[in-house]
Amino acid sequence: MAIQIFKVGLKDHSVLDPVLKRAREDLSSTLALVKPIVEDVKNRGDSALREYTQKFDEVIPPKSFVLEISKLNPKIDPKLKTALVKAAKNIRNFHKIQIPENKEIIIHGNKLGILHTPIESVSVYAPGGKALYPSTILMGVIPAKLAGVKNIQIVTPPRKGTLPDGLIAAAKIAGADRIVMAGGAQGIAAVSYGTESIPSSEFVVGPGNKFVTAAKVYLSGQGVIGIDSPAGPSEVLIIADDSADPMWVAADLLSQAEHGEDSVAILCTNSLSLAQKVKEEVEKALIERPKRGEMKRKSIEDHGKIFVFSNLEECFVFSNLFAPEHLEIQTKNFKKDLKKVKHAGSVFLGNYSPVAMGDYISGTNHILPTAGAARIYSSLGVSTFLKRVTWQEVSKKSIQNLYPHVKVLSEFEGLDEEHGNSVRIRR
Amino acid sequence: MAIQIFKVGLKDHSVLDPVLKRAREDLSSTLALVKPIVEDVKNRGDSALREYTQKFDEVIPPKSFVLEISKLNPKIDPKLKTALVKAAKNIRNFHKIQIPENKEIIIHGNKLGILHTPIESVSVYAPGGKALYPSTILMGVIPAKLAGVKNIQIVTPPRKGTLPDGLIAAAKIAGADRIVMAGGAQGIAAVSYGTESIPSSEFVVGPGNKFVTAAKVYLSGQGVIGIDSPAGPSEVLIIADDSADPMWVAADLLSQAEHGEDSVAILCTNSLSLAQKVKEEVEKALIERPKRGEMKRKSIEDHGKIFVFSNLEECFVFSNLFAPEHLEIQTKNFKKDLKKVKHAGSVFLGNYSPVAMGDYISGTNHILPTAGAARIYSSLGVSTFLKRVTWQEVSKKSIQNLYPHVKVLSEFEGLDEEHGNSVRIRR
Repeated sequence: MAIQIFKVGLKDHSVLDPVLKRAREDLSSTLALVKPIVEDVKNRGDSALREYTQKFDEVIPPKSFVLEISKLNPKIDPKLKTALVKAAKNIRNFHKIQIPENKEIIIHGNKLGILHTPIESVSVYAPGGKALYPSTILMGVIPAKLAGVKNIQIVTPPRKGTLPDGLIAAAKIAGADRIVMAGGAQGIAAVSYGTESIPSSEFVVGPGNKFVTAAKVYLSGQGVIGIDSPAGPSEVLIIADDSADPMWVAADLLSQAEHGEDSVAILCTNSLSLAQKVKEEVEKALIERPKRGEMKRKSIEDHGKIFVFSNLEECFVFSNLFAPEHLEIQTKNFKKDLKKVKHAGSVFLGNYSPVAMGDYISGTNHILPTAGAARIYSSLGVSTFLKRVTWQEVSKKSIQNLYPHVKVLSEFEGLDEEHGNSVRIRR
Repeated sequence: MAIQIFKVGLKDHSVLDPVLKRAREDLSSTLALVKPIVEDVKNRGDSALREYTQKFDEVIPPKSFVLEISKLNPKIDPKLKTALVKAAKNIRNFHKIQIPENKEIIIHGNKLGILHTPIESVSVYAPGGKALYPSTILMGVIPAKLAGVKNIQIVTPPRKGTLPDGLIAAAKIAGADRIVMAGGAQGIAAVSYGTESIPSSEFVVGPGNKFVTAAKVYLSGQGVIGIDSPAGPSEVLIIADDSADPMWVAADLLSQAEHGEDSVAILCTNSLSLAQKVKEEVEKALIERPKRGEMKRKSIEDHGKIFVFSNLEECFVFSNLFAPEHLEIQTKNFKKDLKKVKHAGSVFLGNYSPVAMGDYISGTNHILPTAGAARIYSSLGVSTFLKRVTWQEVSKKSIQNLYPHVKVLSEFEGLDEEHGNSVRIRR
């Protein structure tokens, strides 16, 4: 049997709590493993990187780790190029609305304002292994480019032979400056500290395996780099009522399961009949579409769940506690239901919005907070790469008017001697 | 001799590099110390917290760690109340301009948008020790309140006797819900995990000593809480030319030194004559204003520097590399010079804008990135407490138009079986 149905209420803690407290991967043992690798790359640079690449990526390290994109001319299928260009355009248009305005205000006769300035150098990790993710390159690079980041590099594990032209094309279309062919903890260390051949970055984003994540967390804890929120297994939560198509819901659950054995796919519904039909459709589909079948089945069996609540309100309460990376709302009143969402990475409304549209082409970002991190963190966006610098120009008159308050406050805090003085002498 | 003058150029690495690479406090040894404390409070709750409070804060722990603010009626000097209310009003007005708009856009016939939703529960740490920081309470709580955070608590070490009414009044004026009287790593652990008597928070901000910082870094690395950028010693960098008043510049350097022995105060100028006069004024002031004298002298001797560059451009290049927490620009053309700032926490323009105005009353936030973190992080603000949730409503027509591109991309990534399918079946 593929996916289990549970009739539940919000108080069924024994069923719901383990799902809510889904594994944020415990990084402590991985941290201990990556620490010496990171320190070694810090100290020995390229030659350490070369050794780890041979050992972990099981390839002969490239002669040069760095490909300057301006010098490359990737040859790809025109259809792939058209698709990448179209995706890039939509992503660019959606992220443009995120560019914040600089602002000014006068308070008490003083001018105060906000400037937004970009981080100078960024690395975007694109996972390797057997898969190829040009879409992740677009998602990481385009917002950084719109923020005004001057120096953007892709970090991605070297493959046997050469790097696929599809990845290079995506990097070129997105506007990256170079590709660093290094992966895992050693790749993250190389772009964080820089080596003889690799420029360093101050900020490192993008999804990766547990070694990549542990290296990012370790280096950010050391104050060496800034990072986006640590990535865990991908997940979808679907809230659906009788208006949803069971086959489509099942397809969306399996689309999540296609990412890996640890992917999480959950349906919350108020309809037992929908639940049963979706269950049947999932089982049917696992037979009809056998590709990556074992992986999908394991993901669905271990982490797939159908929760039947007594009403949709309870589905939303649970979803906000779960804070899914992807949330699909396939309900009659999906427009109104959007207002019930407090915590989610990205929301897909109505029957025609499968997650895959956002993964590839609609324009929203697919680098999203996982494992409940959406309760406190945002998806990757333009502001990931911008800082808010505040400024003020105080007037002499305002110094005169406000000094009495500064005196009282600085005296209370025991800092009148200098803090108070610095205002007092300007009256 | 108090403060040293160096005539330098940007290539004088032996002089400048140690200043640029100022200690980000190495947390590794402190992390090892705080880890067992944090784990103990996680496991044993209030009784562990009680023991550590007695041991580290050297006070008899309060009967209850929690003060509900709605039940308190602090009695304070009306002048202090007026000053706190005035400061709160200005902070509120400045931070209001940071509240982001929700946005919508139509791309390819699909509706896409951004919602901003607040974090639900936040703790603001206010340092204890000998000092009292009601101003930090205003700075931490007001932006969270404007973001819509429902559950805001102050965490601050218990003092001998009762908590000063000035702190309680600040918490009340700012709109906090409660005060948790616990400090150090044990206080951070208590609000992160919650105890029998203390509600947990998902996000913890505010400055503290190295134990507080290490506990925050450890717990955020474990995925238990989110945090603002780790706080180090306070710092000011002043860029000034001959138009600056040497006495005022000296006062501003000493105002920074007043925070502690490890505070950093640097003047960058193109004028040797200004440098010499400022040096004299610093020495004079250290004699004339003896309060906290030893501390100020040590800060100035160990970390105070006057750099004379050959022109102002070089001062700005250096400042952007340094990325100061506070940047004062006391130059003839300070308005134009603001445009040269790429990396700084908060900028103070012209001769009438000492840092103390921003510390207390003008309206900008004083919880700022230190130790060069301003190259990648912002000051505390409304968006610290908000998440950007993206959403989309895809149309059937757009599914039909865009499917061919999704097919190409998902095939290239090896995910056509399910990702491609989930779009295909909706055509």
